[in-house]
Parts: sequence; C-alpha cells; structure tokens
Amino acid sequence: MLKKLEIPSKGKSFNNHVKTCVGTGKMSLAMRKEYLEHLEIVQKSIGFQYIRGHGLFCDDVGIYREFDWNGKIHSTYNFTYLDKIFDSYLSLGIRPFIELGFMPEKLKSGDQSVFWWKGNVTPPKSYEKWAELVKKTLEHLIQRYGREEVITWPIEVWNEPNIGFWAGSMEDYFKLYDYSAKAIKEVDKALKVGGPSICGVETEKWLRGFFEHCINSKSPLDFITRHCYTAEPPDYQGHYIYHSIKNPAVMIEELQETRAIMKAYPEISNLPLHITEFNSSYVPLCPIHDSLSHGPFIARILSEAGDYADSYSYWTFSDVFEEMNIPLAPFHGGFGMLAFEGIKKPTFYAFEFFSKAGKELLYRDENMVVTKNPGKYIIIAWNYQDQNLDSDKEAEIRNYSLALPSLGFDAWVVKQEIGRNYGNPVQTWSNMGKPRSLTSEQVEILKASSRPRQNDFKLIDEDGQYHLQLSLESNHLCMVEILPLCDETESYLGFDVKRFYGLDS
Amino acid sequence: MLKKLEIPSKGKSFNNHVKTCVGTGKMSLAMRKEYLEHLEIVQKSIGFQYIRGHGLFCDDVGIYREFDWNGKIHSTYNFTYLDKIFDSYLSLGIRPFIELGFMPEKLKSGDQSVFWWKGNVTPPKSYEKWAELVKKTLEHLIQRYGREEVITWPIEVWNEPNIGFWAGSMEDYFKLYDYSAKAIKEVDKALKVGGPSICGVETEKWLRGFFEHCINSKSPLDFITRHCYTAEPPDYQGHYIYHSIKNPAVMIEELQETRAIMKAYPEISNLPLHITEFNSSYVPLCPIHDSLSHGPFIARILSEAGDYADSYSYWTFSDVFEEMNIPLAPFHGGFGMLAFEGIKKPTFYAFEFFSKAGKELLYRDENMVVTKNPGKYIIIAWNYQDQNLDSDKEAEIRNYSLALPSLGFDAWVVKQEIGRNYGNPVQTWSNMGKPRSLTSEQVEILKASSRPRQNDFKLIDEDGQYHLQLSLESNHLCMVEILPLCDETESYLGFDVKRFYGLDS
Amino acid sequence: MLKKLEIPSKGKSFNNHVKTCVGTGKMSLAMRKEYLEHLEIVQKSIGFQYIRGHGLFCDDVGIYREFDWNGKIHSTYNFTYLDKIFDSYLSLGIRPFIELGFMPEKLKSGDQSVFWWKGNVTPPKSYEKWAELVKKTLEHLIQRYGREEVITWPIEVWNEPNIGFWAGSMEDYFKLYDYSAKAIKEVDKALKVGGPSICGVETEKWLRGFFEHCINSKSPLDFITRHCYTAEPPDYQGHYIYHSIKNPAVMIEELQETRAIMKAYPEISNLPLHITEFNSSYVPLCPIHDSLSHGPFIARILSEAGDYADSYSYWTFSDVFEEMNIPLAPFHGGFGMLAFEGIKKPTFYAFEFFSKAGKELLYRDENMVVTKNPGKYIIIAWNYQDQNLDSDKEAEIRNYSLALPSLGFDAWVVKQEIGRNYGNPVQTWSNMGKPRSLTSEQVEILKASSRPRQNDFKLIDEDGQYHLQLSLESNHLCMVEILPLCDETESYLGFDVKRFYGLDS
Amino acid sequence: MLKKLEIPSKGKSFNNHVKTCVGTGKMSLAMRKEYLEHLEIVQKSIGFQYIRGHGLFCDDVGIYREFDWNGKIHSTYNFTYLDKIFDSYLSLGIRPFIELGFMPEKLKSGDQSVFWWKGNVTPPKSYEKWAELVKKTLEHLIQRYGREEVITWPIEVWNEPNIGFWAGSMEDYFKLYDYSAKAIKEVDKALKVGGPSICGVETEKWLRGFFEHCINSKSPLDFITRHCYTAEPPDYQGHYIYHSIKNPAVMIEELQETRAIMKAYPEISNLPLHITEFNSSYVPLCPIHDSLSHGPFIARILSEAGDYADSYSYWTFSDVFEEMNIPLAPFHGGFGMLAFEGIKKPTFYAFEFFSKAGKELLYRDENMVVTKNPGKYIIIAWNYQDQNLDSDKEAEIRNYSLALPSLGFDAWVVKQEIGRNYGNPVQTWSNMGKPRSLTSEQVEILKASSRPRQNDFKLIDEDGQYHLQLSLESNHLCMVEILPLCDETESYLGFDVKRFYGLDS
Repeated sequence: MLKKLEIPSKGKSFNNHVKTCVGTGKMSLAMRKEYLEHLEIVQKSIGFQYIRGHGLFCDDVGIYREFDWNGKIHSTYNFTYLDKIFDSYLSLGIRPFIELGFMPEKLKSGDQSVFWWKGNVTPPKSYEKWAELVKKTLEHLIQRYGREEVITWPIEVWNEPNIGFWAGSMEDYFKLYDYSAKAIKEVDKALKVGGPSICGVETEKWLRGFFEHCINSKSPLDFITRHCYTAEPPDYQGHYIYHSIKNPAVMIEELQETRAIMKAYPEISNLPLHITEFNSSYVPLCPIHDSLSHGPFIARILSEAGDYADSYSYWTFSDVFEEMNIPLAPFHGGFGMLAFEGIKKPTFYAFEFFSKAGKELLYRDENMVVTKNPGKYIIIAWNYQDQNLDSDKEAEIRNYSLALPSLGFDAWVVKQEIGRNYGNPVQTWSNMGKPRSLTSEQVEILKASSRPRQNDFKLIDEDGQYHLQLSLESNHLCMVEILPLCDETESYLGFDVKRFYGLDS
Repeated sequence: MLKKLEIPSKGKSFNNHVKTCVGTGKMSLAMRKEYLEHLEIVQKSIGFQYIRGHGLFCDDVGIYREFDWNGKIHSTYNFTYLDKIFDSYLSLGIRPFIELGFMPEKLKSGDQSVFWWKGNVTPPKSYEKWAELVKKTLEHLIQRYGREEVITWPIEVWNEPNIGFWAGSMEDYFKLYDYSAKAIKEVDKALKVGGPSICGVETEKWLRGFFEHCINSKSPLDFITRHCYTAEPPDYQGHYIYHSIKNPAVMIEELQETRAIMKAYPEISNLPLHITEFNSSYVPLCPIHDSLSHGPFIARILSEAGDYADSYSYWTFSDVFEEMNIPLAPFHGGFGMLAFEGIKKPTFYAFEFFSKAGKELLYRDENMVVTKNPGKYIIIAWNYQDQNLDSDKEAEIRNYSLALPSLGFDAWVVKQEIGRNYGNPVQTWSNMGKPRSLTSEQVEILKASSRPRQNDFKLIDEDGQYHLQLSLESNHLCMVEILPLCDETESYLGFDVKRFYGLDS
Repeated sequence: MLKKLEIPSKGKSFNNHVKTCVGTGKMSLAMRKEYLEHLEIVQKSIGFQYIRGHGLFCDDVGIYREFDWNGKIHSTYNFTYLDKIFDSYLSLGIRPFIELGFMPEKLKSGDQSVFWWKGNVTPPKSYEKWAELVKKTLEHLIQRYGREEVITWPIEVWNEPNIGFWAGSMEDYFKLYDYSAKAIKEVDKALKVGGPSICGVETEKWLRGFFEHCINSKSPLDFITRHCYTAEPPDYQGHYIYHSIKNPAVMIEELQETRAIMKAYPEISNLPLHITEFNSSYVPLCPIHDSLSHGPFIARILSEAGDYADSYSYWTFSDVFEEMNIPLAPFHGGFGMLAFEGIKKPTFYAFEFFSKAGKELLYRDENMVVTKNPGKYIIIAWNYQDQNLDSDKEAEIRNYSLALPSLGFDAWVVKQEIGRNYGNPVQTWSNMGKPRSLTSEQVEILKASSRPRQNDFKLIDEDGQYHLQLSLESNHLCMVEILPLCDETESYLGFDVKRFYGLDS
Repeated sequence: MLKKLEIPSKGKSFNNHVKTCVGTGKMSLAMRKEYLEHLEIVQKSIGFQYIRGHGLFCDDVGIYREFDWNGKIHSTYNFTYLDKIFDSYLSLGIRPFIELGFMPEKLKSGDQSVFWWKGNVTPPKSYEKWAELVKKTLEHLIQRYGREEVITWPIEVWNEPNIGFWAGSMEDYFKLYDYSAKAIKEVDKALKVGGPSICGVETEKWLRGFFEHCINSKSPLDFITRHCYTAEPPDYQGHYIYHSIKNPAVMIEELQETRAIMKAYPEISNLPLHITEFNSSYVPLCPIHDSLSHGPFIARILSEAGDYADSYSYWTFSDVFEEMNIPLAPFHGGFGMLAFEGIKKPTFYAFEFFSKAGKELLYRDENMVVTKNPGKYIIIAWNYQDQNLDSDKEAEIRNYSLALPSLGFDAWVVKQEIGRNYGNPVQTWSNMGKPRSLTSEQVEILKASSRPRQNDFKLIDEDGQYHLQLSLESNHLCMVEILPLCDETESYLGFDVKRFYGLDS
C-alpha cells in the first residue's frame, strides 16, 4: 500500500492536549522511591501538567482520624503524608487533579470496597463530616501551597459512581456532589469543581441526569469528566485477564457522543470536558498494555482526541500500581507507560512523540499526522493492526511518499522508530525466559531494548520541496523530525572527505 | 566469504591486558569537570587499573617553585594540585602509572619545548635538584596515600627521549634515568622504576643501549616501556593532519621484535613490558580516530597484544586534550575514545567489548575471538578494512558459521554491533552539518547515534551444539554473548502466547 | 562534682557491638523514598551491618498468594517486592537479620492482629504450608543473592511470642519454631536459626522452656534472641502515651540475668545472644524518644551492653514507621534516631559517637568511656539525669579532670557536644510553635539545630601527659577526639602570626 | 557600650545590590570541577546575577587563532571553550558581565603581561582585527544564546588601563574603547558597553578624561565602571604579602566622590555605576581575606554601597584562582569567599546575610541594619575592629537593646552568628597545625567549623513591642530573623510539657 501525499504549507491549529493530565495508582504510592523515579522519567521526557489518581481520603494517606479523649470524640486531620505526596508532585513540575474519594474508615456507612487494597466506596455516614473533611483539606492545601496555586487544581467528585465504585444510588451521588461542591466553593469561589467521573456504563442516563441535577439545583459545575476504555468483556485465566480490544476510533466516537449530549444543555455545552481516565483494557493484568501494538493504538487516539476533549488522562504512567495485587513479574499486563525499573514500553513513546508534535497541523489521516513548528516539521506515523485472538487480518506494510514544502535550505532528518526489534522490551523479556526477578545485567539489556531505533540523514531541497519516503511495518510507530541543515563544512581548512576514513560526505 | 568453524570445548588462557592501563592528556586536565566525567564513564564501563600521561612536573601542576627570601633561594614543593589530581584518580578507582617529566621552569637548562602548552624538555640544570624533586614528590605521595598503595604505582622515567621530547643525548637520558632510579629506591626499595619510554625511532639502538647501560651500571630496572604507533608520515592540511595507517598486525610484529631484543639479555628477558602509549596516528588532528574503522582496527590489536606485552595503554581515553591546540569542533580527529560531551566513538566499544571477554580463549583468527567464562560465551568479531586514501580494495562482508558446544540447555543471545548506522556518531555529526557548537538537542541525538545496535534471540541446543551465523559488513565490530536460558513461562498460570497481542513465543 | 582521673596507657579490648544491628519498621516501608534516604544517612554516619524488622510475610510484601484456576488452588510465591526491599538494603551496605513473620492472609488460622497495619499473629492453618513458604523464600534468596551471602543472614523465628504478638500457646510457638528450623536447615545446613525473640514478660519461664525444648527435641538452635525495654506502664493521653523510664543500668542487669540463665545449659551457654530490639519506651508516641535525655540514656547502655550481648538492635533507626498510626507531626515521640526530613535526634549521636569508639578500652565508669585506637584517643562522656515527671533531683553538672599518657607530641582536640542549645531539634521545633507541616526553611533551621557544637583546640604534651578538663551539664553528651598535631607552620616562609589579622597562634 | 534603639515601623527602600555581580578568576578556570562546585554553592546560598572576570580573549580560552594554509593567513574563531564556560555559568543561573581582554597572542603588539599566567596587556597590533574579534564573538554568543539573553550582558572594555594592566597610554585606551564600542553597537544597538574599569590611581584624571572623550567623540557609553580596594602599600614576606587595611568607610567615600565627578557631566550623571571589583587587599596572598575580621569589614561596605553604586562585585567568590601562583595551602590569603574544598570563610556569610536582607530599611548605623520584609524582620549586625599590626585599640563588645514594633503576635527568633569559635575555619586550620594537604576527615571538621552558631528562641509581644538584646564581641557578625510564631500546641490532644522529658515549654 503506497500513499502519495502533497503536504500543504499552511494548516490549522493542532488540538493536542497530550500533556495536560496523566493517571496514577493510589496516592500513597507517591511516597515510594521507584514511583517517584518513574514520575521523574515521564516528566523529563513528556512533562505532564496534572496527575490524577484514587485514594486521597483512604486510610493509608490517613487524613481523617478520630480520637476518643476525655470522654469525647475528636476529629483529627492529619496532613503528614498528603504534604509529602503533593510536595513530591510539585517538585517534579506536576500538579494534582484532585479526586475526592474514597471513604475514610471513620466516615464509612458500610463495608463495600474496591481493589486489593480495599478502598471503601460507601456513602458517608455523615454528609456534614464529609463536607468538613473536604473543607479542612482544601484550607490546609491553600495554607501550605498558596491560593494562587491551589485554584489551578481541578477538583473531581468521586470516581465512577455508575458502577461498583459507589455503593449508593445515582441520587446519593448527586447528594455527595452537592455537599462537596458547596464545601469547595465555601473555601474559595475560584476553586473549580466537576463530575460525574463515570465510565461507559449507562452513559447517557448518567450524563443527562447529572447535568439536569446541577442545572435544576444550581449546584456549581465547572467542568465535565468521564472515562473511556475500549475493551470487550474480560476473560479471567490464572494470573492474566484477557480481552479483545475495539478499534481506537471507537473512543473518538465516544468523545463525539459525549460532546453531543453536552451540546443539548446551553449551561453545559461549553464547559471543559476532561477524560479523567482512558486506556484500552481496564485491568492491570491484560498483556495488551505491554505489547508493541499498544503504541500505535494510543497514537491513533492522541491524534484526534484533542478535537473533542480538553484533556485525556492515560491510566496510568507507571506499573508501580496495585489495584489487583502486587505484580508477579516485570511484564504482567500492567497499565504503565513504564514497566518496573523504569523500562519504557511502546506506549511511552506514543506519548513522548505527541508531546513533541508541532502546533500547526498540516495533514492528518488515520495513520499519520504531519505537524509544524517554526522552522521544523514533526511527523508522527503509526501502523496499528488488530492483534486480538480472533483477528485474521494479514500484517500490512504502509508506505508513504510525501512531498513537503522546503524550509528554504537542505534539511537534516532524524527518525525514531518503535518496532518488532527495537522499543519492544516485552519481546526481549520473553526471549530471556520471562524471569520474575531481574538481575541488574538483565535490566540494562531491557533498557537498551526499549530504545527506539534512530536514523538520521540529509534531505535535499529539490525545487522548493522535500521528498520523503516512509515505510511502516505492522504495529510500528515513528516520529520524523525535519530540521534545517546549516552546513559548516566549508569553515574547516583542509577538510577532505576522501581522507576521513570512510565518512559518507 | 563464509568461514565455517567448529569451536572446541577447551581452550587456553586468554592473555588479555586490555584493562591494565590507559593514556591521558596532561595531568592538569584532571582538574577539569568534563575530563572527570569522561573518566567516570570509561571507569564505569571498562574499569582501567592505571592511567598514564605527561606533565607531572610541569608548571601548571606547579610542584616545584623557588622563593627568594631573606637573601636566599628556597625550594618550595607544592602538592596542592597534585593531591587534587591523584585524589580524583583514586576516587574513580584508577591508579597513577607515574611518568617523571617534563622539566619545571626553575630546573630547566634551556628553552626547548613540546606542544602548544610548551612542556620544557631540556635536561635539568642540576641533576641533584631533579633527584630531590623526585624524592620529595614520592615521600609526599607515601605520606598521603600510604606505602602499601604507592608501591603499586609503576614509575617511568621521562617520555620518548629518542625524539624531540628530550633535548639531550642518549647518554644524557641514561644519566637522568640513573639519578631518578636511585632517588626512587632511596625513598623505598619496593617502588618500581622503568624506561626507556621510546617511540619507534631507532628502536633497537635505544633498547639495546638502555639495557646494556642498566646492566653495566647496575642501575635498578623493574620493567621496560616503549610506544607503538602505526602511522605513515603526516600530511598537514589546514586544520587537519592526515596519515595513511599501516595494518594493525604491524603493531603485533613490533611487540614480537621488542620481546626478541629483550630475550637477548638474561637480566631483562623476563621483565614486564609495558606499552605506555599506542594508537594508529600519533596526532590529535587525524580523522581516523573518530572513524568507524578505528573500532575494528583497535580490536585486532587487542586480540593479540597481550601475548607479548603486560599492558598497552591507548593514547588517550578522552578528547579533553590539548597537545596541538584547543579542539575546533566536537569531532576533530582527537585521540579520545570519548568525544566532547562524553559521546562514545567506535574505539570505545573495542575496549568495552574486550573488557568483557572471557578468561578462556577457545578460538582466535584475525577477525574474531571466541572466549568463555563459566556458563557463558563471549565472542568479539570485527571486519577491519583499510580506509586509507590510496586503498582500492572493495568492501568485503565476512560471514561466519559457528558450531559451539552447548551450555547444557537452550541459550539466549545478546548481540551488540557497531556499524555504519549505529555506534558511528561522527557520521551523524557530519549529516547535521558538522557544527562546532552543539545544542543540547544535538548532543542527545549524537549520544543515541553512538549506541550499538542490540539484538537478542534464542538459540536452540541441537544435539549438544549451538549453531550461530554471524555476518559482518566492512568495518563493523560486534560482541555476541551467549547466555543460559532459564525459561519460567510455565510458572505463569493461564499464560497463552496467542493472547499476548503479537508476542513471538 | 569533680572527678580526677589518671588514665592508664594500656586497657582491654572494648566489647563494642554498636554497629552490628539496627531495627526498622515493617519491611514494606523499605520501598519508600524517605525511608531509604534515612537509611542512607545512618549507613553513611554509622554503618550498621544488619537490619531487623517485622512483616516479611505480611500481605503488603505479598510473598504468599493462592490462585484458584482450573478448579484447583495454586500457591504462588511472589518475590517482586522482597527483591526490591533486599536489593535496597544491600545497596546501602546493610544485610537482613531475617524475622519470620507474621502470618499471610491465606495461611492464617484466625483474625487476631497487631498494630494499625494489622499484622496477623495467629498460628498457620497448615504448618506444612508455612514450612514450604519458609523454604521457597530462602531458596529464592539463595538463587538471587548467592549462598555465600545468604548464609551470613541470621534467621529468627517470629516476634515476641510471649505476649500479644502470638495468638498461640508457648507450645504452639515451639511447634512453629521446629517446623521453621527444620525447613531452614533443609535448604542449607549452614543457615543459622534462632529464637525465642521474647520481650521481658515471663522471661525466665520462656527462656528455660525454649532451651529445654530445643535440647530435648534436638531442634537446631544457633543463637538466642530477646528484647529489652525499660519503661514503666504506659499512660494514654490523647495523641501521646507517656511512661516513666527506669534507669538504663536496669537493661544491663537484664542482660546479665539472661546470660546467667543461658549458663545453666551447657548446650546453650556459649551461643551468641542477640538483643533483637531495645529501647526505653516501647511505644512510638512517647516523647522521651525525641528528648535530649535520650542521647545519654542510650550512651549508658552502649557503653556496657557489649560485654553481655553480641548485638543490640535499637528499635528503630527512623520515624518512617507506622505501628500506631501515621505520625501527626515531625516530632511525635517516634522511635527513630532520625525524625522526618532526616533530622537527627540526640539518640542518633549516641550511636554515631560509639560507632567511632576505639578498640581498646582504657577506662569506663557510668558516665564515660575512654578508648584508644593507634595514635588517637576517643572519649565519650554523658550526663544522664532522670527527666521523669516524678523525678525531683536537681540538675547536676559533671566535671572531669583527666590526665592521659601523651601520644609523643602535642595534640589537637576536637570535641562534639549535644546539649540544651545544639543537637536538640525538638526544642527548636517547640520554639517555632510545634508545626505539623514544615516549610523547607523550617527544615533547614531544624537541621542546623540538630548538629552538635564542635570545638577544637591544642593540647600540650606536659612531661608525657595531656591534661584535659571536661564539664558536662545535665543530659549533655559529647565525644572528644585527641589527635596527633603535626605543626607545619615553620614551612611557610614569612609567616608572622601578628600579621594574620587576629589569628590566635 | 550599650546602645538603646527604638526602631520605627516605617522606613525607606533599602538600596541593596549585593546580589548583582561577583568576581571570578580567569575565564578558563570555569572548566574546573572544583570551581564549578564552588560556584554552585554561592549560587545556591546567595544567587548572584552576574559574574565578571579576566581572560576572555586569552589563549587558554583560545578564541582567536591564525592558520597558515595555502600560502595565506586565515583567522579562525574557536568558541569550543567559551561555550563550555558560558553554558556552565548559565546552568548555574548566573550571567556573564563581559570584560573584553586581554590580548590574544596573535594580536599582541608586545610582550608585556600580568600575572603568573601571563595575560598579555599590549594594545592590538591591528585595531581592525580586534574589532572583528569582538564582533565575531558577540555574533556567536547571540547565535548560541539568543539575542534576548545576550543584550542583558553588560560589556566592559578592558581592565584597569590606568595601571600595569594596559601597556598603552590613556589615549590608546580611548582608541581601544572606541573601536570596541563601535563593533559592539554594529552587532546590536541594544548591547550595553561601558568603562573605563580603572582602579583607584589617578582616578579623577581618568574619569574626567574618559567622560570628556566619550562626550566629545560621541562614543557610545551605557554605564561607568571602576574598582575599589582599601589597602595600604604591600609588604612582601616570603609566601605572603601583608598590608594594613583602611577603614571600610573609606570605600564608601570613594563611591561618593565618584558619583560627585559623574554629576559634573549631564550626559553621565544618571548612568549606572558598576564597581566591577572591590575588596580590602588587592593581592591573593594577604591573610586578611581568610580572617574573622573580614566578615564585618565587608558587612560595613554592603550596608551602604548600594546608595551610590548599582553593583559592587566582590573580587572573588572562590580561592580557585591563580593570579600570583598556585596556592600553597588551603588557607593562603586568597580572595575567595570559599576556600578550597568549598569551606566557607567569614566573608561568605557577610554576602549570604545581606542577600537575605529585607527590602525596607528601618534603621542603619555603622554596625547594624534593621530591615523588614512583609511579616518578618531581618537584622544584620557586626562589630568590625581594626586588626592591623599597628592597631592598639582594645577589643570592644557592642551591646544593643532594641525595641521593635510587634508583628501582631509573639515571634520566633533565629540568630546566626560568626565569631571566634564558629564560622572561623582559618583558626581551626591553624589549630590543626596548618596542613597543606587536608585529609577528608580534616575537611569535614573544617566544614563544621565554618558554620555559624545558630540559636533560636521566642520573643513575647509586650504591648505591641518586641524587646531584643544583642551583644557582639569584637569582629563578630550576625543575622537575626524575627518571624511570626504560630503556636499549634493546643491542637495536640493530651500534650503535657511536664511529661516531655525536659522540654522547655
């Protein structure tokens, strides 16, 4: 398959919100050394602005406590760990996208919980005490970090109340939302609150219900949140959970539908829409997350999601994560862009490449974006092909022949590519016998395996155009940067390429 | 060309002294930040035991000073900088191989000098004061670093007295040697002294003369030193100096000849022989040092030199070096294994690969060594082809088909290769326009360019043998490690490779 | 009070095991960044050889899991976190002193637990599965770290089975011990096993019972362990637990009594005795741990405990600890030598000072040790005074006048002292208003507060003696080093102290 | 002597330019590891904005070279080292205050030089080539660092042309100035140029001459520069050079006189005045620089110089410096705020304390400034007493009794003091025998010696005032910070100070 393209010299603004937000495992993980090392890696390479995860009010962060003293119950708010966590975030240049939840032991109304670490999901036994907890927490944050900082942190009420993450009814959620939103605005009107943080179950009922509730009860609402996963039902097999995965375009359609529902309400229509979680599979035991194909899968979503959503927070940046147990092996199907030891998976590069995309979008199809910044082209291309068990499509190579307007001189091209034999560490791990405990030598080899293949070459300005050929094998992903070439060869007295022992020009 | 080989299961001990010693630019450079960063890189990857360079007694280290006070000249010995330099060496796990020279301003007998930095090469105006300087310096070193440490540091008298590095006669050198050796042994008999540190000019005359002098005058002599370069005469062209380079086997022959001369003297025959400098070209402006071909060139030497010499010190580990001026560009033909910014040249990998060779040598030819450590094969192969201007040989690919005795199970193979498009940063630098000032982005791209290509795969035990194919293009260099494969796949409950989204077994 | 002392020139060997072992909070904490920073601090300054803490088999380390698959229960042993924890220990130069416990969820026989983090303390529902867990764990450790390494790690069976840490009877403990010891020796006879790890409740009954059980049933026993705390009964008051504390000499007496019981059994008499936990109060909410008086309290114990015990492991090195909840404030009465942010408490210095003590003990009383290493005196002195609520003793200053045999020349003295206004950060924290959340400026001030006061001066050799005056206020602690003075003043030409702008000689 | 003061609640803006600029040894030193470590220390604690030193055009930076090739001389501009130097500066948050000088070998008109490192001070043999060198250098800087950055870097023409630093006449300097200024403005009109960079010899003649020259010849002039030293004539004695030092107030008078001369020329009157070097003694072998008295000496200058000058650049931040030879010992009378190994001298603290002064000046006398920032007082006090050889004044203690308007609540006071026994490392070095080579243990002790003594205590708000007593011994220097005290004691349930084992409230 060869596609010939003539790229125009002008485009439109690229709605690229890839860096706005990223997902994380529970808050308390942010005190771990390896977690912070991973966050430093993604911040250095990608630089997310916000981070969102569960467990702010869980007992391992330990904000809410009650002490029985002198015959009375005293509420004690303990921010020892919260300070450590948020200090670490900010020191790495990332801000909290706050999620209010789950329920502290002393405020729970029942025992229903989620995850291996047993996050309690019952409504508060006292909505007043819940509101007080929200207020005390925000007041503390403002005191420690300053009002100007804290008002930039969005606050989302709870997580996926439309499924097992909430032991109450939809109306109970609205009550929780109202108490929370009121408490937030009492602390500072400039703080931003949103919801309903649902996943894709009974979506329309929940969105319409929530919008109408807020409008009717005049509950504050500054932004809308929802989640998107593209997995078919799970198949539990021993240590793994397998799914088939829908085409990534399905997620783009979900975003369009969400915007369509929002459009029906003038008060809602122009609010920001934050996808506070997205991924293919929604379990951290599904091998797709480690696979080569997940890079191009994610690239396809990143190429277009920004036209509909103001952020889309990949769930999650690191395999330092514990929802369904402690991982059994370095590659175990975890959500992370990074495996243990900071090994970069293909997905990592989808994010890194898009974080470097140009601000101007010159061309886009389902397998490529051609973008530009002043004096520089950035092309990202991918060849996603379904690897589900029942897929019987033959692997297909995609070839592009591009003509681009020249930058005014010859160019230097740097291409980075992820493919079967580079940037694909799960394969190396499999080749070495799928060890659970890695030696330091194995870690070094896996890190080398996880790097893209880099090529560079010159591109001649031919009559005002560059001609570039791109060939992508199945599930490969690449970024091509076209940079101005400033040739200083002439400034070296006596330079003679023939005497440079094999240099090609 | 295909070579079929059946590798035996037993071999002989591999005389591999690749890690014994490395060369450096003048001592005072060791106070520079970038120099120390480079030394840390080579120590981490290779781990040399000794380092040797010029300028211990030069005025920028500043050991010897005279002060006129109260009408008298006072000698002052200042070890401020020497301490900093040797502290840094030792903290990086490398010991000094001391070279006594050049002449301090206050002891010089004339103005003849070498290098841009004007190392004075005249005999001392007072041999007694020279001997005193040697003694004071060694006494200080013993006080600071301890006798047990300092007696492990070989001490070489002067550098290349057979050419312009010495303004005196051969007999003058012998006088300097005698004064120095006597001073050294007066400090501590256990200290080791050697010479004559000559380069390959009038070799036989100097070696025989020096041996006979020491024997006849009973001057102490603990080891023999000389230098080896394989360059034809230089051609000065503007910013560059070009040479043709002889075949690396020429250096092996020189070592054999040196041993033959030593054999003629029973007192000398079994002394250690240290090649205190070696390289292809002897100028830091010759492009061969940066070239792809220099990796296999050096590999050929490293494969055999240890049979004749107890050390062979590559001149030099880093382009942080100033003999012929300040380098004009990141790639300028400098000696370094590392270019500026710590960018690894092909030569670096020749040293790194040989530093990992096995202790047992199973097979060797002019393009390969097959070595073994317990439970592991290490193969290093190269395809050196002459790139001199007048060479008209066609590039030739070398193919090997190896049968190796199995380790008792299937194996996992990790191959690292340096070639035209990887591990060859001078080409990327050339492609980008040969800039003199690198941006930090360019540095990152060059670092990626400088990495070997890594591949890994499984190797099946077929009737007690592994069958391995190797194909090497012109001037490529590779290391292949064959490691035992311990397959844990069965321990994962529910593992199904067909549901791993494209994993190859 | 003035004590005049003539120190002899010869002494005896100082039985100083201060560096052998230290205590830690639960294993899983060793994945936290701040924990590892604290461990690095103590290792750099003190350098412990072993570390011991609870929770190896708890579910947050997650070694033991069961999976229901294909209609069968499969035991899965997961060492993902254990590897991270032990890798971190070893990389900081400290080895595990293994404690087997507590009970994994899937092996428990009941729900009784200890601590806020609910360590299950019931006997195993299957002693065979417990033994299998012990074996699998040790086999894994030997595979990862090597036999030579792992056989140096002592293995203690359970923790304090004589109180609420064990839901079974004494006989049940002996059964657990026997199963464990047998499993250990089956893995490798060279592994060392010990117990009974009791605290000071029914001590004699448990020690005698345990010794007789091992002797009679020929159960392997390589060393004896017990714990020592010197606290009177606790008084719970809101966020705090107060105790009165017994004199530190009480702990020395307990050690003597333990040795006396051991002596009654020839098979036991000469076994090593490890105090696997000791402290004053046994709760992490008692202010004595932060107080100035705790430095001299601990110093008194360290001065003599080595005569009776082979190790004494302070419980614990860091306030990164969670037994009784998440700490509410930087100073909260935690066990740690280090408070949050790595702030050193007085106790830290007791350990640091004793870690620098000389190998020869020249003099010792209840307030001082005078020790010597070749060419150097090290004196540690303290003035512990009871600060319990009901203590009405007046603060007393201790004065010493020491005559020491000279080192052969004048000396240079460096004194470091902890006292009311230096090395006492809890007081600074109190002065600043006892904040719960520290700003980075406050942390810097507290770190400066936590440093000892250092003085240095010359000491003249008077007729072969040095005369040194020491004055210690209540609860001060100091280390005095007497070092040889090598005066180089004469080597500076033109030196004139009167022209050195105020220099005192 | 007791001074009672009632501090007013309002003051004036404090003209405090302490952080604007600092001096450094020659440019090429900035490639040294220890130099950069020292610069990092001062930047972290003080944070200077600009750095100025000699040697930009000297041959060890190596910008200007000539090559003879193909029968012609080619000028080559080599920025390899300049890039490294300026990259390092900028990475540490400090910008170059460029000094154009000295003369490259290939442009010199004679051999006159300054310093041990022989900076050539002759006029250019071609003023056109000099101008070309200036232009090429600035053009390169703009290309590498961007115009917006480079136009913030002041450019000073030469150094101290009124003494031996310039082998030409005053008129020759004006010619150099004119060529340089024209070249600079041709590169970019926004670049700022100034001079005449004189020291205090024939000051008025040079200033008036220079001003009149610029006015008359319409040469561009953006700022005025001069130097100030307060030393009496030198006395050379062996390894040292002693001076008597004038009172620091003399330097303030010199600034006033300079401003008075400037006022006479309307075109000049309002230009910025930069003191591009100042110190007491002008030689790096004068012990005053290491002495305790130099802290209060400098403090006195810093308290007032900003009323007259826009910057005053202390000569120099580090003893990594080589004007008069390689230093013989850690303390040798060097200019540095930092001695070798990063040991802070008293002078360092004068700068650190003033870098933290408040923006509002409430009170100032010759021994104290009382400053304020919102919610915080910062007091700096010193007691400078002349330590010259012929000074026979008795050491005097200064006592202050201050009444300050309260901040509205009780306060917490943190006092840092430099004095005879703390913050005075030269004394400790002297006590230890004045060693030339320090062991790492000695370095640690010296670092501890170099720290200020810190005390902290509460201050009660008594009827709207704080009452603070300050007592300063001879040549002590202190900073007192008065901070709001927010007492959280009440929030701890069960807190009982009597049970805190000796805590003072």
